[in-house]
Amino acid sequence: MKAMRLHELGGRLKLEEVPVPKPGPNEVLIKVRATGVGLTVVIMLGTPGLVSSYPRILGHELAGVIEGVGSEVDGWTKGDRVTCHFYLTCKQCKWCRMGKETLCPNFRGYVGMACDGAYAEYMTLPAVNLCRLPDSVSFLDACVAADAICTPYHACRHEAQVGPSDDVVIVGGAGGVGIHGIQMAKLCGGRVIGVDMGAPKLEAMKTYGADTVIDAVEGDWSGRVLELTGGKGAEAVIDFVGSRGTLETSMKCLGRMGKLVIIGFRPPHVFKDLPDFTVNPLEVLSKMQEIHGSRYSNLQELHDSLKLVSEGRIKPVITRTFPLEGAEEAHELLRKNELIGRAALVQG
Amino acid sequence: MKAMRLHELGGRLKLEEVPVPKPGPNEVLIKVRATGVGLTVVIMLGTPGLVSSYPRILGHELAGVIEGVGSEVDGWTKGDRVTCHFYLTCKQCKWCRMGKETLCPNFRGYVGMACDGAYAEYMTLPAVNLCRLPDSVSFLDACVAADAICTPYHACRHEAQVGPSDDVVIVGGAGGVGIHGIQMAKLCGGRVIGVDMGAPKLEAMKTYGADTVIDAVEGDWSGRVLELTGGKGAEAVIDFVGSRGTLETSMKCLGRMGKLVIIGFRPPHVFKDLPDFTVNPLEVLSKMQEIHGSRYSNLQELHDSLKLVSEGRIKPVITRTFPLEGAEEAHELLRKNELIGRAALVQG
Amino acid sequence: MKAMRLHELGGRLKLEEVPVPKPGPNEVLIKVRATGVGLTVVIMLGTPGLVSSYPRILGHELAGVIEGVGSEVDGWTKGDRVTCHFYLTCKQCKWCRMGKETLCPNFRGYVGMACDGAYAEYMTLPAVNLCRLPDSVSFLDACVAADAICTPYHACRHEAQVGPSDDVVIVGGAGGVGIHGIQMAKLCGGRVIGVDMGAPKLEAMKTYGADTVIDAVEGDWSGRVLELTGGKGAEAVIDFVGSRGTLETSMKCLGRMGKLVIIGFRPPHVFKDLPDFTVNPLEVLSKMQEIHGSRYSNLQELHDSLKLVSEGRIKPVITRTFPLEGAEEAHELLRKNELIGRAALVQG
Amino acid sequence: MKAMRLHELGGRLKLEEVPVPKPGPNEVLIKVRATGVGLTVVIMLGTPGLVSSYPRILGHELAGVIEGVGSEVDGWTKGDRVTCHFYLTCKQCKWCRMGKETLCPNFRGYVGMACDGAYAEYMTLPAVNLCRLPDSVSFLDACVAADAICTPYHACRHEAQVGPSDDVVIVGGAGGVGIHGIQMAKLCGGRVIGVDMGAPKLEAMKTYGADTVIDAVEGDWSGRVLELTGGKGAEAVIDFVGSRGTLETSMKCLGRMGKLVIIGFRPPHVFKDLPDFTVNPLEVLSKMQEIHGSRYSNLQELHDSLKLVSEGRIKPVITRTFPLEGAEEAHELLRKNELIGRAALVQG
Repeated sequence: MKAMRLHELGGRLKLEEVPVPKPGPNEVLIKVRATGVGLTVVIMLGTPGLVSSYPRILGHELAGVIEGVGSEVDGWTKGDRVTCHFYLTCKQCKWCRMGKETLCPNFRGYVGMACDGAYAEYMTLPAVNLCRLPDSVSFLDACVAADAICTPYHACRHEAQVGPSDDVVIVGGAGGVGIHGIQMAKLCGGRVIGVDMGAPKLEAMKTYGADTVIDAVEGDWSGRVLELTGGKGAEAVIDFVGSRGTLETSMKCLGRMGKLVIIGFRPPHVFKDLPDFTVNPLEVLSKMQEIHGSRYSNLQELHDSLKLVSEGRIKPVITRTFPLEGAEEAHELLRKNELIGRAALVQG
Repeated sequence: MKAMRLHELGGRLKLEEVPVPKPGPNEVLIKVRATGVGLTVVIMLGTPGLVSSYPRILGHELAGVIEGVGSEVDGWTKGDRVTCHFYLTCKQCKWCRMGKETLCPNFRGYVGMACDGAYAEYMTLPAVNLCRLPDSVSFLDACVAADAICTPYHACRHEAQVGPSDDVVIVGGAGGVGIHGIQMAKLCGGRVIGVDMGAPKLEAMKTYGADTVIDAVEGDWSGRVLELTGGKGAEAVIDFVGSRGTLETSMKCLGRMGKLVIIGFRPPHVFKDLPDFTVNPLEVLSKMQEIHGSRYSNLQELHDSLKLVSEGRIKPVITRTFPLEGAEEAHELLRKNELIGRAALVQG
Repeated sequence: MKAMRLHELGGRLKLEEVPVPKPGPNEVLIKVRATGVGLTVVIMLGTPGLVSSYPRILGHELAGVIEGVGSEVDGWTKGDRVTCHFYLTCKQCKWCRMGKETLCPNFRGYVGMACDGAYAEYMTLPAVNLCRLPDSVSFLDACVAADAICTPYHACRHEAQVGPSDDVVIVGGAGGVGIHGIQMAKLCGGRVIGVDMGAPKLEAMKTYGADTVIDAVEGDWSGRVLELTGGKGAEAVIDFVGSRGTLETSMKCLGRMGKLVIIGFRPPHVFKDLPDFTVNPLEVLSKMQEIHGSRYSNLQELHDSLKLVSEGRIKPVITRTFPLEGAEEAHELLRKNELIGRAALVQG
Repeated sequence: MKAMRLHELGGRLKLEEVPVPKPGPNEVLIKVRATGVGLTVVIMLGTPGLVSSYPRILGHELAGVIEGVGSEVDGWTKGDRVTCHFYLTCKQCKWCRMGKETLCPNFRGYVGMACDGAYAEYMTLPAVNLCRLPDSVSFLDACVAADAICTPYHACRHEAQVGPSDDVVIVGGAGGVGIHGIQMAKLCGGRVIGVDMGAPKLEAMKTYGADTVIDAVEGDWSGRVLELTGGKGAEAVIDFVGSRGTLETSMKCLGRMGKLVIIGFRPPHVFKDLPDFTVNPLEVLSKMQEIHGSRYSNLQELHDSLKLVSEGRIKPVITRTFPLEGAEEAHELLRKNELIGRAALVQG
């Protein structure tokens, strides 16, 4: 089969012919139909220790059809349309079993890094990582749901707990995950203030539901948030960027009982600014604010995100598609940070 | 190996020699060291449909040592001391993966009913059903934690949300699960009012932490609860009996924002009174009360219950022990409803 | 001033000339501009004990302008545009001060029943009952927010905790409060199934956001809810009717972890069916369902409801307006249960 | 009457004869019986802007008997035994009415700073600031409940949400508030690790329920916390000190989903270290941790704290008492930071 493989840390993808993998007893074989391509992954390719061995087939956000099932697999059959939860975890620890599988202490790594992924015609996956697609959800839409939609679903619903009448700031709202954060915060009933840089990104945030947008190129945008909220500040700020600068500015946007949700991050090897940020404890105490870390989602949240796509309540934003062979071209686009929304590889 | 097997609905257990079972690829073989014996199970033996085939080795509350592991099992080795979560579920659905595994729609039944259990020298279990024992917890104590402690842990912490200053009524507080409910509500900071029948049971509730006890043989005890709470009613009532009578009396004990947690139940084939109970919606509405169903626990709650036992914060109440061969004698004791706390079978 | 007064239990309103009231030290004088008229109030007029003395000026849902302030009043001045929280409570007890003022044990009754209300040109109110209007909210829209919008806000956000991907059934969704319940559940991200009787009401629910509607005249609608939810049942049912029939059918609609929120009620003197309903505890336990009573809202929820109106996220549904003198005509319309949404009296 | 008055910022108290104050229409006159003396207050005396005018009678933590009631006061009569919620707030805003009165934007200051307090024979208080004493609670015990007990009640129950099996670190656990934090975390079911400096303070923490204690004079204690928790870290750290050093060490103690609750603070004019602390967002994100600010309590939490004292579940720790005239001596003791628990002034 054809596969796009990475041969070294920070290298470029190569199109190669490799054998179709065989599923283990608890795995399934999937014919890949669509694969999302995200900035985070591209950045992480330069981070030592994430790819467990080379050469590696990348690709963690995918949708496809089951082609074969291992001897011990129950509940899945050839022809099932699926996407995947991309954390390789044990399912036996207390964290996996309380709905917090991204905290599994036995975490083995990400699909497409710790094992081969979806930049190929076929791939294998543990059955416990599968999530069934509603009939009405296309493969293309589904591959984006598996990260870029379920991640803000968790952040908005369970960390920020966005609800009607809340003023919510989405920082980095035109990125691949952020643009779905804009939609999700709006869907929860919030009034959404989108922050990103440059006219095309502001325009995109408006298109997908932001009530107001702020251009961060003009510097500290917290004053504008206070103004827009009549001085009271925001109920929640969800930061999809996670730099020191955005985090400290985000804190200044919070009102009484305001919550900062940290969802983006900046790998230290890439960005020169130390990611650590400074917090004023008197401000946090006297306004009873909260800071929450939000890490991906669990399978239930992925499941429910797909329901939202099937009902048309969240619209996957895929602005560019490529054939499998175009994966490196897609990566290049992401490195330049010029993409709004998500890119995807489409097969068949 | 020796095993106590059931040959028909509502029958009696027979001591028999059977082969040691072989674990499947995702299973482990356990040498059983202690097995809890509970009223619910005994009652359920008369309920058609629960035991999937006969003869059947019973026993769902157990502790033992791993003797062998299947080919696909990770993270467990010979010699590990374990107990088990006794629901046979899929671990692939949204319910299993959001910490609500007892709601799994692919539920296959209980250990010891849908598969052979722990009334035997050895048994097999899926690795995902295991929970590791802290070193300081004995097998005997552990077997009780696996149902009789983690069940009230969930009910008290996550349904009733008992905290300091709450007045909590425990109905059926001297039974095998209820006696740990008394301890758990107390451990959460509550003032505990225990309700059961007869002097020995009242005495036992006091011994394990009830601040006040009420003898239900005297009839409607809700008046006494109102009196004890200065007329305001209880913040929570946790009903380990679940008859129509106890449920309706429990509702009358609730104050503003009071919560009724239903944890006990009465199999209709055994008890003549219909289990349905009557609720006054005006009362629920005007006092903003809540009614919650509480079903066993998840693996995390079992894990944390074992930590409580290891720290000595919850004391497993095992008032009678029997050898494996005494299982039927233990059942007879339970049928007479004469036991306070739990009985257990001990081996080796 | 002109006022519409009630002279006896269950009587008819009379237009009369009465003196303008004088505010006490902690009260303000309000020039009434709009008054909502609701079915519940009309029904309650026949309930002994609610109107504290006759003759009485009715009217609890109002908006107007402050005309004078008592000597001890801080923070309010002539010209302020306001609406009111209509519970007369103490503000000194633990319930008032934990955001649960509708549970105040010192509750003195409702504005317009325990004291004169807003079916008049002027009225007085305790300053603690006031809520300031955003500039962009009209008096007409505001008067409806004070009951018919903040009530479902509390029920949807804090009891049912409706969020994206939830299937929510709104029972009685075309009534004065229910029609805003339809909007609120939708605003929270839910997929809304509206239940009411007759084509015009179904049509209205669709207009205001129901994804699907069911005509309850066809009998038990729980089967249809199960069908619409693929067999899984609803995450929440919010019952704005509260009869025995709707409550029992609502319970049958609930899925795993489903919540019934009771918000409507049936005064026993009016309806022949006993309001008590029957609950199957085994069903509640095995599906871990919840039943919640929801009683009006607190001042914060009223405040936030006005924000939602000001932002256009909730549209007050006022289908008929009358002059002050038309209050009795409006009541007659409600008695016939022919009104969709809310009626209001408008002055000036 | 006799009163201890402060005449300038950072000055010393003087015993003076002043007129008995007269209650306004919404106020009561209280004969003071006991007054708590806390480190925070003493420190704050040097903070410009808190005392609204001089001379000022200090004292915010008090218990006494009502001697007279204003003309508009309902629900209180001569002879009532009371304590007080010491925030002067409006009771009309959304924050006051959602149980978050310490966030009131119309906050006028603290009792004993923005108005005369309880270092006197008599004082006046708004009726809305009162809280009735259970009969069995002494004046001496009650005065401590009004700050030093209800503050950790809020922090433990509603911010850290401490429950059975949680490992909880209490930083500054021998101080006037911290020593009740030790008791409260224990009462919630937690395993309590107390951190403070020097043998007498460690001993005191043990006496009041700490399972383990750590001496912070030995430097970074986070390693010891990780060791005590088997490497997993704490579920919660409640920091009653709030210096940069304690906050940063506290963050290092947190495990997965761990919560840091900030309750202590360091007035910048007193302490040279900037209070700002540094947070690693990758750590917060990848472990899904939370940081919460906790500010005093609301009236309900004060009410429930008194219930805990009346039941003997929390033991007020008053290690030194003084007559009214000894207030300055008590302050001196606090300035030296040599007191364990609370000091109090006792009259009559």
